[in-house]
Amino acid sequence: MGRYESIRLAHGSGGRLTAELIREVFAATFDNAPLAALTDAAVLDNPGGRLAFASDSHAVKPWRFPGGDIGRLAVAGTVNDLAVMAAVPRYLSAAFILEEGFRIDDLQSVVLSMKRTADEAGVAVVTGDTKVVERGKGDGIFINTTGIGFLPPGRDVGPHRLTAGDVLLVTGTLGDHGLAVLAARAGLPPGMALESDVAPLGGLVEALLAAAPDVHFMRDPTRGGLAAVANEMVASRPFGVRVWDARVPLNHDVAELSEMLGIDPLLAANEGKIVVALPAGQADAALAALRAHPLGRNAALIGDLVLQPAGMALVETDYGSRRVLEMPVEEQLPRIC
Amino acid sequence: MGRYESIRLAHGSGGRLTAELIREVFAATFDNAPLAALTDAAVLDNPGGRLAFASDSHAVKPWRFPGGDIGRLAVAGTVNDLAVMAAVPRYLSAAFILEEGFRIDDLQSVVLSMKRTADEAGVAVVTGDTKVVERGKGDGIFINTTGIGFLPPGRDVGPHRLTAGDVLLVTGTLGDHGLAVLAARAGLPPGMALESDVAPLGGLVEALLAAAPDVHFMRDPTRGGLAAVANEMVASRPFGVRVWDARVPLNHDVAELSEMLGIDPLLAANEGKIVVALPAGQADAALAALRAHPLGRNAALIGDLVLQPAGMALVETDYGSRRVLEMPVEEQLPRIC
Repeated sequence: MGRYESIRLAHGSGGRLTAELIREVFAATFDNAPLAALTDAAVLDNPGGRLAFASDSHAVKPWRFPGGDIGRLAVAGTVNDLAVMAAVPRYLSAAFILEEGFRIDDLQSVVLSMKRTADEAGVAVVTGDTKVVERGKGDGIFINTTGIGFLPPGRDVGPHRLTAGDVLLVTGTLGDHGLAVLAARAGLPPGMALESDVAPLGGLVEALLAAAPDVHFMRDPTRGGLAAVANEMVASRPFGVRVWDARVPLNHDVAELSEMLGIDPLLAANEGKIVVALPAGQADAALAALRAHPLGRNAALIGDLVLQPAGMALVETDYGSRRVLEMPVEEQLPRIC
Repeated sequence: MGRYESIRLAHGSGGRLTAELIREVFAATFDNAPLAALTDAAVLDNPGGRLAFASDSHAVKPWRFPGGDIGRLAVAGTVNDLAVMAAVPRYLSAAFILEEGFRIDDLQSVVLSMKRTADEAGVAVVTGDTKVVERGKGDGIFINTTGIGFLPPGRDVGPHRLTAGDVLLVTGTLGDHGLAVLAARAGLPPGMALESDVAPLGGLVEALLAAAPDVHFMRDPTRGGLAAVANEMVASRPFGVRVWDARVPLNHDVAELSEMLGIDPLLAANEGKIVVALPAGQADAALAALRAHPLGRNAALIGDLVLQPAGMALVETDYGSRRVLEMPVEEQLPRIC
């Protein structure tokens, strides 16, 4: 791509510059046979059985942040949506909406970050698309990734399996992504080190399911954080959820910055964590397996599903007080993912 | 969605407004069981065998144009990418990047248009995503659709099967989408009626393959038009392509407006046409099948693959002159799809 330093409208024309971009940036980096065919659709092996299919568009601002960038986020986000359905993520598409003037070396660095994250996750980016919009009609780079995973026979994870008595685990500290992006925008207070937790979690899920095959439910608490997941778990159901405040793992600087800014870290976004519900009898095995994995070292049991009050999410403090963990309404932080 | 007339940042927050939008606009309209589950990934039946997987982002301007809108385009575009691989399109994802302030009734009309087009195509929109960007950081509505199709056993269509002697068909008039969008932007000359050809072509492909099972190659000539497809067919191959100018079907007003503006309709975008290459012996059967289908009435044989000059696309006129049909370099019309 030596000819141009930045994206021109013609890179989205379907003509020669589009072909160069595909060949020299996308196909060269993602480097796999279905993509190299450059056909309208990738042709893929399929073991049969059930598919999982998930789509996520990414518009995070800034596109590079402490601990990651929009490329890593785009791959991990969709991989994690498949993994929490207990599927094995396998194929991704990657579709870019680029603003005229976006630097091609920045694009290359994002694509390389996608490739590295895809390798880490064991998935291949096998098809894609590029559109270019005029200056002022986009914001640098938006990426959609859509993924296919295969569901091994017998796996059945989902909200329909939740039941009172289940315990609630998180696979690590909460709020890291949300606070890291916020700090990247606002400027970090001196001495604080916040990093996004963005990571693909397929391997962690497999480790968990091997140790605790009866997991009832998993979800990655992205936008809206634990608060959104907890409320979705219990809305219109005959049970509620209780979270013990003091047991929620938080990184020191996340807790401090949240306090400083009056933000509830339970509403902040995560991109490398899972909320798990399972029978109490499997909690120890699950926690041991999670903590033995590099992405689950800080896993913790943080709550349970209770019969009363049904349909609600409550947070209990060590001092016995209780507050309602509301479903977020307003955007805490736009463009977090 | 009675509470708000237009999109707010909170509709992308992952909280209550996101949930309302998903439930009341997307799930209510697309209306199918995998989507209604509102899980992170849709869980889908899978007959086994090979998959086809294609992704397309759509940023057409204006988002509503004569003959269609971005919703119909988004569904047809991805369906057609699967169909030209000889796959049977089955599942779509739909991911929206909305600009703050986009009207919710406009969004509803786009989603309804997607649903109607999906029904026409025999596909279901089973998963999706919504992001909202601030005013001035997007342009109303961008839609990514990514699709899964299943490849029936034995089908083998692609550039590797092209060979000298193949004839070239188009399934109808060229340039309709490109010129209709151009006219929608610039204002239509009085008395002219231009309409986009945007349509899902899975049914047309099945009719074609039933009559002419030995089709070698299909592609939908979207951005870059016939010129881009013709050049991609022959680049670095031991054959070239010859197109007979007078045989290319053109709507009267497309020809007239192209002439008026100095645009080559062979470079203009199509969203409801296919370029087909197949052995000469099957051309009559193929043309008869195409012309018997409502979306193929104007199908025509327009050229062939020749040994010399290899690697090039040439256009021949009735008067014996020849010109090179160049791969487009600059964007003829940005944001055409």
